[in-house]
Amino acid sequence: MKPTHIEHIGIAVNNLKEAISFYEKSFGLECYAIEEVADQKVRTAFFMVGQTKIELLESTDPEGPIGKFLDKKGQGIHHIAFAVKGLAEALTTLDASGVTVIDKTPRKGAEGLNIGFLHPKATFGVLTELCEDPSK
Amino acid sequence: MKPTHIEHIGIAVNNLKEAISFYEKSFGLECYAIEEVADQKVRTAFFMVGQTKIELLESTDPEGPIGKFLDKKGQGIHHIAFAVKGLAEALTTLDASGVTVIDKTPRKGAEGLNIGFLHPKATFGVLTELCEDPSK
Repeated sequence: MKPTHIEHIGIAVNNLKEAISFYEKSFGLECYAIEEVADQKVRTAFFMVGQTKIELLESTDPEGPIGKFLDKKGQGIHHIAFAVKGLAEALTTLDASGVTVIDKTPRKGAEGLNIGFLHPKATFGVLTELCEDPSK
Repeated sequence: MKPTHIEHIGIAVNNLKEAISFYEKSFGLECYAIEEVADQKVRTAFFMVGQTKIELLESTDPEGPIGKFLDKKGQGIHHIAFAVKGLAEALTTLDASGVTVIDKTPRKGAEGLNIGFLHPKATFGVLTELCEDPSK
């Protein structure tokens, strides 16, 4: 596995509308999509910065992963995602080499990507996502 | 201001050597530079992932910013840096618009870049750096 680029940076925010306004007005970025991911209990807003998306994450349920994160740690960076090719094989190889993976096989994430998470205890405190665009 | 790309993602780690080994062996990335930034009391290791650097940060002094971060929050993402053009003007404009900036004027950072930090309270909990390569 060798990641090709940083696919996105996920940032947990209390209020999606306020955060969108900040990135638009202060940074001159354009929010090109808002998407609700029901099974992750989040509403997301996307901005493109070069190769990388800023993915703002607002919780839709205090018991969801972002709701719990916000309650425990407050607003801030939730995870980073590396774009890879051969996601399924990468997860298998990492798992077999002793890296603690949350997802042993790919699952569907936002924007139709296939994704898998590594456990932050294996990645120096960084919740790390690997993702692959099945259309490419 | 409109950022062109994510210049780097700064990750605070307890042990630079172990973290370098992980990103090299598990992710197939190459550490292309190790640099000590004396006034920031850190030793940094750099990896290129597309347009973006992963910047691992090991503290050289418990009283430095990374030492304090590690003590308070543990390992994890410390900051993200957006590449911009016109850094000095961007900091002035943000400051004038009410965004709390840590650096009102640019200063020198790692790798010869000019940098300025925004306060995380202004940026939804994300310690945010803006940087500009003076050679470009």
